[in-house]
Parts: sequence; C-alpha cells; structure tokens
Amino acid sequence: MNVDGKPYRTVWLDDEKARPGVVQIIDQRWLPFRFEIEELSTTAQVATAIADMHVRGAGCIGAVAAHGMYVAAYEAARESDFQKALQTKADQLVATRPTAMNLKWAVDRVLDRIKAESDIEAKVAAARELAQTIADEDADWCRSIGEHGRSIIEKLATDKPAGEPVNILTHCNAGWLAFVDHGSATAPIYAAHDAGIPVHVWVDETRPRNQGARLTAWELHQHGVPHTVIVDNVGGHLMQHGMVDMVITGTDRTTYTGDVANKIGTYLKALAAKDNDIPFYVALPSSTFDWEIEDGVADIPIEQRDGTEVSVMTGIAGDGKGDESELHIVSPGSGVANYAFDVTPRRLITGLITERGICEANAESVLGLYPERRG
Amino acid sequence: MNVDGKPYRTVWLDDEKARPGVVQIIDQRWLPFRFEIEELSTTAQVATAIADMHVRGAGCIGAVAAHGMYVAAYEAARESDFQKALQTKADQLVATRPTAMNLKWAVDRVLDRIKAESDIEAKVAAARELAQTIADEDADWCRSIGEHGRSIIEKLATDKPAGEPVNILTHCNAGWLAFVDHGSATAPIYAAHDAGIPVHVWVDETRPRNQGARLTAWELHQHGVPHTVIVDNVGGHLMQHGMVDMVITGTDRTTYTGDVANKIGTYLKALAAKDNDIPFYVALPSSTFDWEIEDGVADIPIEQRDGTEVSVMTGIAGDGKGDESELHIVSPGSGVANYAFDVTPRRLITGLITERGICEANAESVLGLYPERRG
Repeated sequence: MNVDGKPYRTVWLDDEKARPGVVQIIDQRWLPFRFEIEELSTTAQVATAIADMHVRGAGCIGAVAAHGMYVAAYEAARESDFQKALQTKADQLVATRPTAMNLKWAVDRVLDRIKAESDIEAKVAAARELAQTIADEDADWCRSIGEHGRSIIEKLATDKPAGEPVNILTHCNAGWLAFVDHGSATAPIYAAHDAGIPVHVWVDETRPRNQGARLTAWELHQHGVPHTVIVDNVGGHLMQHGMVDMVITGTDRTTYTGDVANKIGTYLKALAAKDNDIPFYVALPSSTFDWEIEDGVADIPIEQRDGTEVSVMTGIAGDGKGDESELHIVSPGSGVANYAFDVTPRRLITGLITERGICEANAESVLGLYPERRG
Repeated sequence: MNVDGKPYRTVWLDDEKARPGVVQIIDQRWLPFRFEIEELSTTAQVATAIADMHVRGAGCIGAVAAHGMYVAAYEAARESDFQKALQTKADQLVATRPTAMNLKWAVDRVLDRIKAESDIEAKVAAARELAQTIADEDADWCRSIGEHGRSIIEKLATDKPAGEPVNILTHCNAGWLAFVDHGSATAPIYAAHDAGIPVHVWVDETRPRNQGARLTAWELHQHGVPHTVIVDNVGGHLMQHGMVDMVITGTDRTTYTGDVANKIGTYLKALAAKDNDIPFYVALPSSTFDWEIEDGVADIPIEQRDGTEVSVMTGIAGDGKGDESELHIVSPGSGVANYAFDVTPRRLITGLITERGICEANAESVLGLYPERRG
C-alpha cells in the first residue's frame, strides 16, 4: 500500500545486481512517528529484526524469515561447509520467536527447496526466488480477501444515499503492516477505497499497545483512506446511533467451528454489533484456522502479558521530535492485569472473509470452502 | 474514606475558632501521583477550585459550592453592603461551571437560608452550618447507597467458597472523590469491605481521561480494598470465564424509566454482563434521576469533548518525581472523535441502588421508591 504516495510492501529484496544478499524492511518500531527503512545484509540482522519486533504479524514474519533464509544462503555460500552453515543460520532464525508458526513454516520451506538443488549458486538463486514467492503468496491471499470483502462493502454502499461513506469499525491492526501487503481486516477497505467506493473507518485505539491509534491509523492515513481514531469504549455508542455499517477485524486464531481469538476487546464489539443488528465480519487467510479446537471460548489459551503494557504509555513529546518516551499512567500501588486476547463466539459473527471466499462462522460452512480439511 | 490510614472527606471546614472562613479540599488535580490539601480562604479561590477542576463530581461540587457560600458570607460581613457583596460572590461561584446543576442548587439553598436571618453574624453562622449540613446529607445518601448495595454483595459472598472474594467490576470513578464521602458505585464496595466481606474490584482504566486507573484505583488502594486495574477491553473476557460476580457503575444521568447515561463504554460492559448472566447494578443518589426524559438512548444528549483527551496522554515520568507531563499517542495526521458518555438501555440493568433502597430499572419500580414524583 502507499506511504507518502509511493507503494510499499513490508519486506522486499534489493536490486539483485546492485546489492545481492540485501533485504529491506519497514522498521515498524518507529511508527507512527517516524518512517524508517532498515537494510538487513546478515542473518544475524534478520534475526534481530524478528526477535526485537522491527516487524510483527504472522504473514509479515513468515515473509521476512523467508527473505532471511535467502540472506543465510548467500552468506553460507562463502563458508567451507554450505549445508552446515545454512542449518545453523536457519536455527538462529527459528529461535527468534518460538511461538510464531509462520516463521518455522517459512524457514523449513526454503530449506527444503534449497536441498533440491545441487549447485551452490543454484541453491542461493532458489532461496531468493522462493522468498519472493512466499511474499507474493501472502500478498495474493490478502488481495483475494480484499476482493471478496469488497463485495460486502459495495452492497452496503448501494443502500446508502449517494456519496455517503460506508462506516466500518475495526479493532487492533490487521493491516498490511502485519502481512506483506493489503492486510486482512484492512484488505476489503483498501479494495473498496481503491475502487472509488466511499468508506470511512472508525479506528479503535486498541489498548494496551494501541496498535489501532499507532499502526492502523498510520496505514489508513498514508493510503488516503478517511478515518477517525476513537477510544475502545466508543464503538457501542456509535452502533446505537447508526454510525457504523459494518465491523471487520482480523484474528490471531480462528477455530474451524468459527470461534475467533483476536485482540482483547473484540468480543465486546461483537456483542454491540449483534445488539444493533450490524454485520460483524472477521477477515483471515486460511493459515490462521485452527483445525483441531472445537470450542474456542473454552479451549484457546489466552496469553497474559507484562503489566507494564497497561501501566506505562509510550508516545512522543509535543514537539514531535526526538525518540518516544514513557509515562506511568496508573495509580502507584495498584496492581494491573493484562489479558492480551479474547474469544468471540461464533454466534456473534456474521461471516469469515478468506482468500477463497466468504463463509459462515460454523464448521460446515468453513469446511465447505476447505473440503480438503474434512475428516 | 481513608487516605494513608486517616479518614478524609473531599471538603471540610477548618476549626472555627482557629481560622474562621477557611475551607479545605483535596486538590484532585495531582492525584494519583501526589496527595495535596488546598486551603481556600476567599470566594475567588473557591471559584478557581471549581472552575479549574481541583474538585469534580456532582456531589463534591455541590458541597464545595456550599462551603464557598460560607466563605462568601464571611467575606461579605466585612463589606459595607453585605447582601450586595454576597450576591456578587454567589454569582461568581455559579458562573464557574454553568452546567453543574448541583452547584446552583447548593448556592441558592445557602442564599435562601442566609436571607432568613437578620443579624450579619447569624447569617454567617447559618451559612457555615448549612454548608456542613449539605456535606453531611451528601455523605449520608452515599452511606445509605452503600448499606443497600452491601446486601447484594453479602448475598453473592454466601454463594462462594469461604474466603473467596466477590469480584466486582466498575467503570470510571463514581467514588468518594466525586462526592463528599463513600461515593455511589464504590459505596457498596467500601461498606462490604469494612464489614469484613472479602471483595476484589476489577477497575476499568476508563479511557479517555483514565479516571479508573487514576482515581478509583487510588481510592481503593488508600482504603485497603483489593483491586486490579485492567484496560477497558478486558471486562468481557473476564465475564466469559467466571471472574466477575457483579458490575456496579455510577451514572451522570438516569431517566426515571431506567436508562443510564454514564461514562462512555458502560453500555459495552452491560452487554457483556447480560451475555454472561452477571448482575449489572447502577448506584445513584436520587438527585441524579431525570424525571422528564423517557427514552434515554434517543433523548439524552451526548457531549463530545476535545480530541486532545484521546490523542494526548498525561502521566508521570519513571522516577515518580516532578509534575505530570504529556505525550502524543495517536498517529500524526489522523483525526480523533471523543464521545464522553453513552446510554445503557434499561433492559440490560439488573437494578438501581439508591439512598432509599434498590429498585428495578423501570418507571414503575423507580416511582415506587419515589412516589412523590408520580404524575
């Protein structure tokens, strides 16, 4: 999507001839207050970028890891034992974020592809090509989610007076920054906007960590999509008063039965949407489905994170210059709890928007789109 | 309630003989990071304290205004034209916050009482006495709310394993800092705690302005009530998992038909309570009832406040010393909206806890407690 009028992805390769073995990423740590591109030319740099969250989001992490494997192959080609050096670097990448499933999946996929070639130069070239393919696949899936979701927005637009925007509420950041391009929840919004359908997005601030106010707002602003940031408490009031036409969120894990784990607070918005008869959609690439768990509310474990995410706020001083700083915002002496996710039961969800199309939030409908998962 | 082990109210008179005409308040601007008592010995100082929000909350503002009228009478007694000077000072107090109904009510009540005396010294003494009476009345009403509400908590406690606390969720600050003592939503909690019933309070941070994380947390900590601060997004998850036994909030305005206007986000918590079959109570002195409006969702106007409450966060730097400072926390270039209140429809409310007892959230039940309002 666009940044300052120019299209970007979250990760890309440098020109092969000019600087082989160099990967570029958006260093998301400085957003929204500074847009910085980081060059990664060693596996150690890629590992640091993943471990220290210069990049985040399943799709984005997978693609950066795949690119990291190209860097690893490029480096290993200069070592005496290519395969041993490559494996060490692969292990280094996988160790950065042990719970990120996409990371190991991407690394293993590139490792397998490299093994299929016998010549070292061909191994490096294959790694490079596959890294690009993995990034393209992620972008393509998100683009498909966007196309399918756009049809819903298009239909809502026809029910409104001409020129009035479709008001869409979203929670957290399931934007292109979390993938390679387009995003999941944002993909239908970008697709509609780019197709000339007037949209306006209510962006939940999304406490704690404020990914809405920081990342979603930044993305939408850069791409020119009209939007307004609100605190997480506001959505219900807007829905009561006809100011929200639909809700779209992303998800960290969705059971094949349709229960949606997502950033804490999603459940409250789904309740308000139901109470006000507003469609509530969840957008996800099928890699996010959990094909084992049946009862998401009972069985998806909910991570508790460090309390400083609640008690300490980061931001930038009034002059907008310099680095971010921190303030304590909770009464001293009071304890805090920090539940990171909640689970929205399927009965509150209008539909799931996947790369293969839109389905209902139940096993029969999900398996109808993914019949290879039956049985 | 207690601060550092010593009982306080939000406003009180200095010893009459030592320093007549002196009023003391807790200067709430510095909470929770500094506890400061402010002395007010001129009407102008009282007016500044109300206008610049050294005190806030309907009950507290009314009591401080009444005390301000005592200061005004004490000052006017030294002027050539007592009545003219008094009226000027009364007007000065009323002008500080034009929409605070309790303020004008308290000022007019003291003015009337002063008129009933002919001797200047008796006028000043009457003002002093009535200021104390108004503060006592506010505290008594809140204490009664506490006693009635305690019975609900007591009953919930008997259904729990011995020693396990009753978990109560609250939103915003309807604590003693907003009244003279006890508070509204907090009154049942303090009453239960002081009676030895184990309670634990989930304190919603309450964006924007963070009155939960700042004031409610501070109050509960000072009085020794176990509590945990959470972001506003968490309540639904806790309710899904049996970690909340009841919700109690305050209200800024409640229709006689039972619709509750309160800090933005209250409606979302009421939806979650309903979805999980958890009792949702609203505590209020009857002065908060609106006896005219029937449909709160449609007809209670919702204030939109300045966007900087959303985009700028105040807090204290890591060392805990010095004054508070500010950080920008929203992506530059993104607009914000700041709806201050929402209305929770009566169908989601289990009961209203008033100074006269507990009733259901409907006209028949409310008018049953307040029969003088019929017709």
